[in-house]
Amino acid sequence: MVDRVGAPEFANWSCPLPLKDYPTIVMGHGGGGKLGNELVEHLFLPAFRNPELENLGDAAVLDAGSGRLAMSTDSFVVQPLFFPGGSIGALAVNGTVNDLAVTGAVPKFLSASFILEEGFALRQLAAVVQAMAAAAAAAGVRIVTGDTKVVERGHGDGCYINTAGVGVLRPGIQVGPQRARPGDAVLVSGTVGDHGMAIMSVREGLEFESQIRSDCAALNGMIGDVLDAAGDAVHAMRDPTRGGLASTLNEIAQASGVGVEMDEGSLPVRAEVQSACELLGLDPVYVANEGKAVFFVAAEAANRVLEVLRAHPLGREAASIGRVTEQHPRMLVARTAMGANRVIPTQIGEQLPRIC
Amino acid sequence: MVDRVGAPEFANWSCPLPLKDYPTIVMGHGGGGKLGNELVEHLFLPAFRNPELENLGDAAVLDAGSGRLAMSTDSFVVQPLFFPGGSIGALAVNGTVNDLAVTGAVPKFLSASFILEEGFALRQLAAVVQAMAAAAAAAGVRIVTGDTKVVERGHGDGCYINTAGVGVLRPGIQVGPQRARPGDAVLVSGTVGDHGMAIMSVREGLEFESQIRSDCAALNGMIGDVLDAAGDAVHAMRDPTRGGLASTLNEIAQASGVGVEMDEGSLPVRAEVQSACELLGLDPVYVANEGKAVFFVAAEAANRVLEVLRAHPLGREAASIGRVTEQHPRMLVARTAMGANRVIPTQIGEQLPRIC
Repeated sequence: MVDRVGAPEFANWSCPLPLKDYPTIVMGHGGGGKLGNELVEHLFLPAFRNPELENLGDAAVLDAGSGRLAMSTDSFVVQPLFFPGGSIGALAVNGTVNDLAVTGAVPKFLSASFILEEGFALRQLAAVVQAMAAAAAAAGVRIVTGDTKVVERGHGDGCYINTAGVGVLRPGIQVGPQRARPGDAVLVSGTVGDHGMAIMSVREGLEFESQIRSDCAALNGMIGDVLDAAGDAVHAMRDPTRGGLASTLNEIAQASGVGVEMDEGSLPVRAEVQSACELLGLDPVYVANEGKAVFFVAAEAANRVLEVLRAHPLGREAASIGRVTEQHPRMLVARTAMGANRVIPTQIGEQLPRIC
Repeated sequence: MVDRVGAPEFANWSCPLPLKDYPTIVMGHGGGGKLGNELVEHLFLPAFRNPELENLGDAAVLDAGSGRLAMSTDSFVVQPLFFPGGSIGALAVNGTVNDLAVTGAVPKFLSASFILEEGFALRQLAAVVQAMAAAAAAAGVRIVTGDTKVVERGHGDGCYINTAGVGVLRPGIQVGPQRARPGDAVLVSGTVGDHGMAIMSVREGLEFESQIRSDCAALNGMIGDVLDAAGDAVHAMRDPTRGGLASTLNEIAQASGVGVEMDEGSLPVRAEVQSACELLGLDPVYVANEGKAVFFVAAEAANRVLEVLRAHPLGREAASIGRVTEQHPRMLVARTAMGANRVIPTQIGEQLPRIC
């Protein structure tokens, strides 16, 4: 089993009385009996408490008003569970929040489901759950329903989490990967590669002058600002997670049947991320981000969107990195300073397994 | 790793061309690259195809109309993946459909997220996915969004599935575990213990004159018939899954602050399930069901609800098994033929691990 990085801020967590008899997860925590109920009552409910969750029914009852909804899901298997700048708990909330936000929705409700491995420490679970609660509060979403399963030692990896989310689509907003148009500007909300290299630095034991931190964050606030300011001028948005920026830009090029041209050298990359990438033979353009968004916007709105992004704490290093062309449809090309073009393909798999 | 029971009906499944190079899951199937896209395009999409899913956005866009929603989630880790009467795929769909239905909602949309173990056969995955598609079609729900993660060999068990579901609450229906009232009749829609004993029979290699089959089924149609016929007279509904009927009745007794009295001998149990339970030292009242519902209904509506249940293919063996009392609040007691009472507590854990 991969070593787990502890969560120092929860070192003083005190196990509530009824949970004390079982300091680690046992198979019975996954049954329909008292042990499972105690986990819910003394661990999940105090952390996530809200009116929808408190009913503890088979399903939560939600008031989403009228309007179209967005629904998304992701499972999280990242190792280690805690890393500089984030944790599996923060990722599980922010990942689903961001998938809803880039679809043009206001994220509202999340479900949370845990697959725990026999022997996982309750102290660690509490730290994961606290991180989820903090992330949900920061993103303004509520965790309204959940589930816990337990698998035998050797059939899991401590803790896997699934979240699904429901959001309400902003009226009048029409964004989608198939809506990029020739002439669109391509903007990124900040430096790329931070999340992936934070994970890899921990796994590989790399040390740099400054620690690489994951960019793990909820983007719904920043994206809301962009949509408020630019509305219909925003054609496509996406968070470049697994597969990195290169995969996201390739996907949009393919979905819209257009070419995407990226200016080599325009991509914001932290010096320590660049160093780590060089050391491991990776290209930052393929490395996962967990707190960045890419925007395809009408050229005339590009400067306005950049201003809005840079005014937001999560978008201070936003940059214009390229444009949509009619040439080389369905392909992403990097344009060098000399004017030459180089194709950046979608990768076969993933350079970095279990990054989220 | 537990041996997996094959799915004979998919023995002739032909792997679509682009997937042929990787007959088993590799780590790259969980990346953001071409391998993952091929799984989506050639395996998930053909099986689940619907307009919401086809957009393949980060989130699905749904039209749920107006009205309150219900949201539920469950992860499924059952072993073996295929068993008489069902599979992890059928369970994953029906489990979430049933959680929505017993909340008084019409199930509409599901998400599906897979945690696959490196080395898992694509042929098996295809069988799981086909079973999900068939179950979704039978239940009248659409799988609109999804995710796939891959973990290294030895960190999973072939295939874990999470589903989350969204449904629309029936207007005017007010059911909940806290609404049982003294005088209510307690009805069960059929025999208990079938699912758990089907799983255990496979695991333990038990053989009986007739094979024990899981009762795995979507209950939304039958529950809809009951609500159409009895409306407000239905106070509480639940599907007695993990922890069995005993846990469900205890939960409702506690949530409503009432006593529940069960007539010993009134419980419908198949002869072969009874035999298997005796062999393994289990009580059918604690064994999981995956296609049964319990109803707490006003006494005057009990006969009408029983008639409606028995008219439905899934409710032919429905029975009245007891009543709600003011005595012994928050407890479930069995009443013997001699008139004596015996408390049936909630179990500490679960007799049967990984039953769903």
